[in-house]
Amino acid sequence: MAPPMSEPVSLEGPVLIVGAGLLGTSIGLALRRRGVAVWFRDVSTENLRTALGLGAGQLSPDIAPPPQLVVVAVPPNVIGETLRWALTHHPKAVVTDVGSIKTGPLEQLRAYGLAGLSRYVGGHPMAGSERSGPLAASAAMFDGRPWAVTPHQDSGREAVDLVLELVAAVGATAVQLSPDEHDRAVARTSHLPHLLASLVAGRLAEAPPGHLALSGQGVRDVTRVAAGDPELWQQIVSGNAPAVVHLLGEVRDQLDALIVAVSKGQQAELTQILAQGVAGTRAIPGKHGGPVRATASVFVSVPDRAGELARLFADAGSSGVNIEDVRIDHDPGRPTGLVELVVADDSSEHLLSSRESRGWVTHR
Amino acid sequence: MAPPMSEPVSLEGPVLIVGAGLLGTSIGLALRRRGVAVWFRDVSTENLRTALGLGAGQLSPDIAPPPQLVVVAVPPNVIGETLRWALTHHPKAVVTDVGSIKTGPLEQLRAYGLAGLSRYVGGHPMAGSERSGPLAASAAMFDGRPWAVTPHQDSGREAVDLVLELVAAVGATAVQLSPDEHDRAVARTSHLPHLLASLVAGRLAEAPPGHLALSGQGVRDVTRVAAGDPELWQQIVSGNAPAVVHLLGEVRDQLDALIVAVSKGQQAELTQILAQGVAGTRAIPGKHGGPVRATASVFVSVPDRAGELARLFADAGSSGVNIEDVRIDHDPGRPTGLVELVVADDSSEHLLSSRESRGWVTHR
Repeated sequence: MAPPMSEPVSLEGPVLIVGAGLLGTSIGLALRRRGVAVWFRDVSTENLRTALGLGAGQLSPDIAPPPQLVVVAVPPNVIGETLRWALTHHPKAVVTDVGSIKTGPLEQLRAYGLAGLSRYVGGHPMAGSERSGPLAASAAMFDGRPWAVTPHQDSGREAVDLVLELVAAVGATAVQLSPDEHDRAVARTSHLPHLLASLVAGRLAEAPPGHLALSGQGVRDVTRVAAGDPELWQQIVSGNAPAVVHLLGEVRDQLDALIVAVSKGQQAELTQILAQGVAGTRAIPGKHGGPVRATASVFVSVPDRAGELARLFADAGSSGVNIEDVRIDHDPGRPTGLVELVVADDSSEHLLSSRESRGWVTHR
Repeated sequence: MAPPMSEPVSLEGPVLIVGAGLLGTSIGLALRRRGVAVWFRDVSTENLRTALGLGAGQLSPDIAPPPQLVVVAVPPNVIGETLRWALTHHPKAVVTDVGSIKTGPLEQLRAYGLAGLSRYVGGHPMAGSERSGPLAASAAMFDGRPWAVTPHQDSGREAVDLVLELVAAVGATAVQLSPDEHDRAVARTSHLPHLLASLVAGRLAEAPPGHLALSGQGVRDVTRVAAGDPELWQQIVSGNAPAVVHLLGEVRDQLDALIVAVSKGQQAELTQILAQGVAGTRAIPGKHGGPVRATASVFVSVPDRAGELARLFADAGSSGVNIEDVRIDHDPGRPTGLVELVVADDSSEHLLSSRESRGWVTHR
C-alpha cells in the first residue's frame, strides 16, 4: 500500500529522526537549513540535549500532526527493531534509515510479518567521519556525497520519491539500487578495503623497532581507514557477512596465487595480478561521477610553517589552474613538507612553470 | 679495505651516476645544485641526452680523475651486475645504489668473489613517483624524504660516511639499518601494502556495472598505490621474495581467521582483528619522525572552480593555524568539493570559528 499523500510528493515535514548521533543530527541540521520541521527521539538524553542545543530540531510534541517521514539513524544492530517500531507507531509515515547494510533490516521486517512495508525505503549516505556523536555533526556533512537509495520490490513509488527528496534536501546525490545490489556494492567498495587495510595495519603493529621509520605516503594511504572504530565496523561487517565472506574468499584465492607466484618466482603471474590491480584503480569513477580525467601531479617543497600553504594556493589560484586534489607528504626530521597538487593533465606544464617563476621548488 | 681518502671524508666528486632515469637524474640535479661534478652513463642514449639537457651532469670524459663515488641507479634486475662493473672498473671509488632491495645485490657481489666489497654501501631513497624517466626528475625529489643507508659487515667506515654525505647533499634524511633489516622493513611498509592494495583493486576491476558509484574516499586511498607500474613492482617484489612471502603467510593466517570470524558471527574475534589494525595505524611515525601528534579534522565545502582553494588557504593562513594535512574529497555529479584540513587538535576550534566567520560552510 502506498502512503496516502498528494502528488507530486514533496517533503514538507515534520520529519522524525530517531537517533541523535553523528548522522541523525547532521540530517536535522541540513533539514532545518531548509526550514523543514524536525523532531528527535533518542534513548540517550545526553545526545538528545546536544542535538537540540545545536539547533538540529526539537522534541517530538505530545499532541502534533503525524510525521510525514521517519528517519532511523541508530546503530546497525538495532536498526531492524527500530524500523518495526517506526512503521507500527507511525502508520501514515514513510520510513527510511541510514544504515550501512540494506538487506538484513529488510529481512527482519519481512520476518515480523508487518503490514505497511510499502512505506519503507532504505538509504545509506556515503558520508561520516572517524569521529562519532552529535558534537561532530554538520549541516554540510552530505554536500555533494553519494547517498544510496534502495527501494525493495514492495516499496511504493511515493515513498521512494519522498526519500529521494530527503536526499536532495540535505545536499546529497542519490544513487538508486536494490538492497541486495547495495550490500554487494559496499562489500566491495567499503567493507573489503577496510578489512584488508586492517590486515596490513595489523602487520605494522608487530613491526620490529625502527622498521616503521621507512614508512612512506603509500602505507599511510593504504591503512588510513583501518583507524575506524572496531566495534562499529564489527557490526557493519557482521551485518553484511554473506557478501563480505564471498569477496574475502575471492581474495584468499588471489592471495594463494600471489604467494605461489612470489615464492616460485613466477614473474608473469605476479605481473598479471599487479596489472589487474592497475585496472581496478582505473575503474573507480572520477570526480563528478564521470570517467577518470587525465591528471598530472606537480610537487612543491613547502616550509612547514603557518602561511606557506596559503601563499602556495594564492599563487596557484592566480595562475587560473583548478586543483583537483592535494596531498601533503609527511617528512621525518625536516622542516619542509612536500605538497602534491593534482591538476588536469593539460594544466601541469603551465602550473609548473608559473610555480617556478614565483620561486617555489617544484617537480613532476 | 677502506677507500684511500682523507679524513674527515667529504663529498667533492666527481660522482658517476650509472642510469639516467627518474632517480639517477634527480640525484644529478640535486648534486649540481651543490656544485658537485656529476658524470652520467646509460645504455639509453635518449635518457642520457635528456638528463644532460636538463643540466643533471655531463658525459664521463675519456681522460679524467677517477670518480670519488659511483651511484648505481638502474632497474632492479640489473643492479647486481652493474655494481660488479662499478667496483671493478673504478677500484678507488665508493659505490652505492638506490635499489628497493638490499640483500639480493649484496649476495650477488659476494658470489662473484670480488675484492673491494668494503667500498660498497647500499642505499634506498623513499622517494619517487608513479611516473618514470629523466623528464620527471627534480632536484627537490629527495627533500625531507627518508633515505635508507644499509652498511654490510664489510663496509668501510669512510665509505659509509661518504654515502651519508651524499644523502645529506641531496636533502634527504638518512635512516641506517642493515641490508637484511631494510628488506624486512620495506616488505612490511611498502611491498605488503602494495600487494594487498592490488588485491583490493583487483576486486574492483570485476565489479558489476554501477556498483563503483558508491566508492568513497576510503577505497580510493586504499587502492591508490596499486596504480604503480606492474613490471617495476614485479621486479621489486620478486627481489624481496623471502621477506614478502613470510608476511603474506602471516596475512593469509589472519585472513583465514577473519573469514571464520565473519562467516561464523564470532564478534569478539572480528573486533580483535579490527582493533589490531587500529593499533597498527597508531604505530606509524608521525610527521617529523616523532610520535603522532593529536590532530583534528575540519571539513569545508568548497566550490569546484579555480581560486576557491586559494581563498580558503589564504583565509586559513591569516588565522595563523598550521595545516598538517589536506584532503580533497571527490563528489559525483555536484560542483562542490569537500576539503579536509587536518590541524593540531588544539587549533581546530579556532580554525572552525575563523572559517565560519568568513562565510565558509564547515564541520568537524
